[in-house]
Amino acid sequence: MSPLKSFASDNYAGVLPEIMEALHQANYAHDRAYGADEITQHAIELFKQVFDANVDVYFVFNGTGANILSISAATQSYNSVLCADISHIYNDESSAPETFTGCRFFPLKSNNSGKLEAAVIQERLIRKGDVHYPQTKLISLTQSTEYGTVYRPDEIKEISKLAKEHDCFLHVDGSRFFNAAASLDCDLRDISTYVGVDILSLGGTKAGMMYGEAVVVFNKKLSEHIAYKQKQLIQLASKTRFIAAQFDAMLRNELWRTSANHANAMAQLLYSELSKYPKITVTRPVEANVVFAEMPADWIPQLQEKFPFYVWKENTNEVRLMCAFDTNEGDIQAFSNAISAYSGII
Amino acid sequence: MSPLKSFASDNYAGVLPEIMEALHQANYAHDRAYGADEITQHAIELFKQVFDANVDVYFVFNGTGANILSISAATQSYNSVLCADISHIYNDESSAPETFTGCRFFPLKSNNSGKLEAAVIQERLIRKGDVHYPQTKLISLTQSTEYGTVYRPDEIKEISKLAKEHDCFLHVDGSRFFNAAASLDCDLRDISTYVGVDILSLGGTKAGMMYGEAVVVFNKKLSEHIAYKQKQLIQLASKTRFIAAQFDAMLRNELWRTSANHANAMAQLLYSELSKYPKITVTRPVEANVVFAEMPADWIPQLQEKFPFYVWKENTNEVRLMCAFDTNEGDIQAFSNAISAYSGII
Amino acid sequence: MSPLKSFASDNYAGVLPEIMEALHQANYAHDRAYGADEITQHAIELFKQVFDANVDVYFVFNGTGANILSISAATQSYNSVLCADISHIYNDESSAPETFTGCRFFPLKSNNSGKLEAAVIQERLIRKGDVHYPQTKLISLTQSTEYGTVYRPDEIKEISKLAKEHDCFLHVDGSRFFNAAASLDCDLRDISTYVGVDILSLGGTKAGMMYGEAVVVFNKKLSEHIAYKQKQLIQLASKTRFIAAQFDAMLRNELWRTSANHANAMAQLLYSELSKYPKITVTRPVEANVVFAEMPADWIPQLQEKFPFYVWKENTNEVRLMCAFDTNEGDIQAFSNAISAYSGII
Amino acid sequence: MSPLKSFASDNYAGVLPEIMEALHQANYAHDRAYGADEITQHAIELFKQVFDANVDVYFVFNGTGANILSISAATQSYNSVLCADISHIYNDESSAPETFTGCRFFPLKSNNSGKLEAAVIQERLIRKGDVHYPQTKLISLTQSTEYGTVYRPDEIKEISKLAKEHDCFLHVDGSRFFNAAASLDCDLRDISTYVGVDILSLGGTKAGMMYGEAVVVFNKKLSEHIAYKQKQLIQLASKTRFIAAQFDAMLRNELWRTSANHANAMAQLLYSELSKYPKITVTRPVEANVVFAEMPADWIPQLQEKFPFYVWKENTNEVRLMCAFDTNEGDIQAFSNAISAYSGII
Repeated sequence: MSPLKSFASDNYAGVLPEIMEALHQANYAHDRAYGADEITQHAIELFKQVFDANVDVYFVFNGTGANILSISAATQSYNSVLCADISHIYNDESSAPETFTGCRFFPLKSNNSGKLEAAVIQERLIRKGDVHYPQTKLISLTQSTEYGTVYRPDEIKEISKLAKEHDCFLHVDGSRFFNAAASLDCDLRDISTYVGVDILSLGGTKAGMMYGEAVVVFNKKLSEHIAYKQKQLIQLASKTRFIAAQFDAMLRNELWRTSANHANAMAQLLYSELSKYPKITVTRPVEANVVFAEMPADWIPQLQEKFPFYVWKENTNEVRLMCAFDTNEGDIQAFSNAISAYSGII
Repeated sequence: MSPLKSFASDNYAGVLPEIMEALHQANYAHDRAYGADEITQHAIELFKQVFDANVDVYFVFNGTGANILSISAATQSYNSVLCADISHIYNDESSAPETFTGCRFFPLKSNNSGKLEAAVIQERLIRKGDVHYPQTKLISLTQSTEYGTVYRPDEIKEISKLAKEHDCFLHVDGSRFFNAAASLDCDLRDISTYVGVDILSLGGTKAGMMYGEAVVVFNKKLSEHIAYKQKQLIQLASKTRFIAAQFDAMLRNELWRTSANHANAMAQLLYSELSKYPKITVTRPVEANVVFAEMPADWIPQLQEKFPFYVWKENTNEVRLMCAFDTNEGDIQAFSNAISAYSGII
Repeated sequence: MSPLKSFASDNYAGVLPEIMEALHQANYAHDRAYGADEITQHAIELFKQVFDANVDVYFVFNGTGANILSISAATQSYNSVLCADISHIYNDESSAPETFTGCRFFPLKSNNSGKLEAAVIQERLIRKGDVHYPQTKLISLTQSTEYGTVYRPDEIKEISKLAKEHDCFLHVDGSRFFNAAASLDCDLRDISTYVGVDILSLGGTKAGMMYGEAVVVFNKKLSEHIAYKQKQLIQLASKTRFIAAQFDAMLRNELWRTSANHANAMAQLLYSELSKYPKITVTRPVEANVVFAEMPADWIPQLQEKFPFYVWKENTNEVRLMCAFDTNEGDIQAFSNAISAYSGII
Repeated sequence: MSPLKSFASDNYAGVLPEIMEALHQANYAHDRAYGADEITQHAIELFKQVFDANVDVYFVFNGTGANILSISAATQSYNSVLCADISHIYNDESSAPETFTGCRFFPLKSNNSGKLEAAVIQERLIRKGDVHYPQTKLISLTQSTEYGTVYRPDEIKEISKLAKEHDCFLHVDGSRFFNAAASLDCDLRDISTYVGVDILSLGGTKAGMMYGEAVVVFNKKLSEHIAYKQKQLIQLASKTRFIAAQFDAMLRNELWRTSANHANAMAQLLYSELSKYPKITVTRPVEANVVFAEMPADWIPQLQEKFPFYVWKENTNEVRLMCAFDTNEGDIQAFSNAISAYSGII
């Protein structure tokens, strides 16, 4: 049996070999639980070098955990959060955001690239001080976006400025933050520390870790309750060292960049291949590790059989094709060959 | 540097070599996320062989997650839960139980062995149908208990009978369930399936896994909402296969029993060693992998320096000494030697 | 000082004389608390006569309480609720809906009359069985709507049919339900019992009561938890008889109809008056007790000084003019006169 | 039919005539909703005169609402609250305290008079800074207590001092606060403002109002979120003026004192009467408006038939006999006569 390769999600992939090695190294004797161990302390030091000496870091289990811990650190239960209508927190985390924070989540119309524009955000910054209205306190962006596009530093800065003017915090859901930084060829701090992000969900799992994400706190106002909320939100691992070790490996020598660059390059290659087929239209800018495209309806189930992927919009036959750290040129070629065969183009 | 060995907690330990190997085996190509993968399906089959063909199984990140998912599957927000005053859910999970379930948690007086007795439970089964009172719907036991004692099958049966008579469910917090079954030299089903347990938090982490616990549902009435609540409670791992693979290894050939037998045996050895010192009194029956003992106050900080452990009760100098899968005879001997030295007994 | 008359809201009004009299009558000696009294039992009998012998009735403090009790009776915390983007529960109840139910609230685009159309609802009835998506379980309509329009029986029936087909419940926020029934010249049951409504928030306060609303349950599936949830949601009055007495008076001899007919008629009169002024455009159908109109921006603050009312949309100078049970022809005439004066038309 | 008089609860009583009159006076024309009206502003001024110029006041619907608003103003969801094991918030408010605040509520053993002693509180002020433990932030007393006893100013001061030393707030559940002040013959401020109370639930309903309680905030640290939380907790009445008017009447000329003095005096009279019967033992100090007594088991149902009251402890036949503002000497005499008849003593 040839192993499955899919374009369904980067979380269908396994674990980077460097990460597996780091897990082995972490498996020495006893060490203190709940993050008081040496590996965790070392990993936090690395985060401080990479982001800023003043950041606080909390290791959690998964992306939803990172997002909700971030949001709960920034809000009271009578607050509201502004997020994109297509965002993961609004579409794919059940009602966990509401259940754990009590807040209203207002879905804002994202543009064709999947980004929130400042003008759209501004329209919802209303009714300040009105007890009948859930007071807006947080704006949440996704980097890279659900459409695989990337907010530039100046775009983030514009939104963080708007947030501050309205006494709001800025959160970034960075489950694919590494792909964004790789795409922009910038440092992680260029799209976080330096542009007014208050709190970041930094994704590890989709980047090639086994499990684990990090919440990075830039704004000390958000530090008061967060350690208590992490435990309360069931996001404090007893053997934290095994999450920390993975992040340590990921940040060391910028393993994240090598890995994200590869996934992004595979998306570009896929984009090129798809462009060969007149009946296929790529629908969103390809900036990170995913390609969105419309294709004839009858091709989709045939292709999905061999290469699992998701249909994004049923009515327009728009599909999402995600590349992971271990997608290779052969996979793309095989996918393209299959299209050729089904489409009658050779 | 000699590696740290501690008696603080079994979650200070690392990962069993068989578990590390299973993680490697699971790291093949792509597979479906969120538990739709082949390994997860295989592991669930193993659970059905071990417990019952009808059980449902949900893999979660940690013990608090398993407990709260179990409780939320069995309760409405106006319900109450009866648990031991010394239980983990009442003492060490922040207010997560309340926050996520909305329920009242009533602490019942446990006996000197740390067990809940049926008569004590009965006293709180009151005010049925009274809207002013949080209606009791769940009884939660810990197996093995916080004092390292073990409920016998007939003891569980008596409590499950009482639960059913009062239209309540029975939950077992089994973060050290393997140690209990090893201690009783019985099958896992003998203290769950066969004695009226409705839902079980089955611990993996303290037994030698890297992370991961399982919720085992015996009573189909608790299955209606649980899959949705698992996601909502942030306890659904995208790469679930890596939790499932660990449990698969743990259940295969009863690795759990070998490992738990060893930890339990180390506790017995420690018990024997401590019995040599007249100034030390073992305070609870030693049935699983922990020993509780009172010792002279001034010995404690000296011993803790080399062998971290917790003081359980400040006022009586009662300490908790936990053994893990990797505690060995040398560790116990070294600890005993230290006592000899400090105590002046040679 | 001439007494203030306003078009701001029907909750600026006081209390109907018949209601004051009923409160006096209820103030006899002692009677059982929490609804076990004779007046409450009598009022519930009246509800059964008016709606259906099988309805259950719960008296609560206010409209938000009625809505959230209704919603919480119909949902689990992983569910979602579909409501109009302009609905009260989405705009004017803080984040109470989320905090107490845990659910996601999806705002659906209402049409120009403020109604939800079946086709728009249908579009959101998606992803059934997908644990990542908050499962839709309730559709909530407002009757009469925020724009003062009224759902006809056949419109409600179409939506309740859709709800049932998708295993959803239908809730009606009827804070102005009496105005709707008066407008349609129908019985209360014609737009509830007979057309598939599962649960109704029946408003008393805006209709001329001092305080108090009723939750009417038509679908017995929603009765399992509701009495417990009423207490838990802090909506169970100790001296319930004083709410029940008001409803008793309201239903007896259809006081509600007399009162609502009057308020509705005042809105029609206001509509006629406003139509005299070419610079004023009435923007929504006038079917109940409110008129929406656009007027020159500079008139608004002058008029508001004497006759408080709300600007609904800043950008189009659309204002909301609400009539209450005690609005009289003189008030309307005075308002019209003021417009004449300010507008230079005499 | 002679009207029912009961000793079940002071909330079985109706409404003081002065309060009914105040409701009439408040029923003039239109006034602003949600507390922006003139009566509410006037009532708040009265509160400032009575308590302190710096207090904030929030009018709510009922006692549970007042308690939970107070608690939620003082806590984060990872906090815990210390309260008496016999307190109303722990026994008679469903799980509303947990559901709305997320907090753990620790029941502390009250003494035979129903009071919490500082030493008992001190024992639970533990594990500061430990994320695994719900961090204690609030101590809640009941004044007068569930046993009808009264904390003296120095007792409250001792506990408020302890609270401050441990960075906790002090809440008083004063559903019968007026009875306590009347019993002590002191001003309201003597047992609140002057002795370190941070926030007070001031009861109106049991004192003779139709509905309504007030939350009085003494510590400005608790003012940040409370207005928003009041709305979110569904405790903001649209026609607030009708609650405010009742409190205005209650505070004016100390109507509360006249009324509470009477109820307290009736309890003393009842105490005297019961003392005549050798088989009856009064079990708690009689300091406010309630008498607890043990009596022969077979008397109870006979007496309850004519004079409803509650059995407090089944096993000792301890009953609770509550006096209200409208209990009169004839009621007490009739009750005593019945005892004479049933007991064979004349």
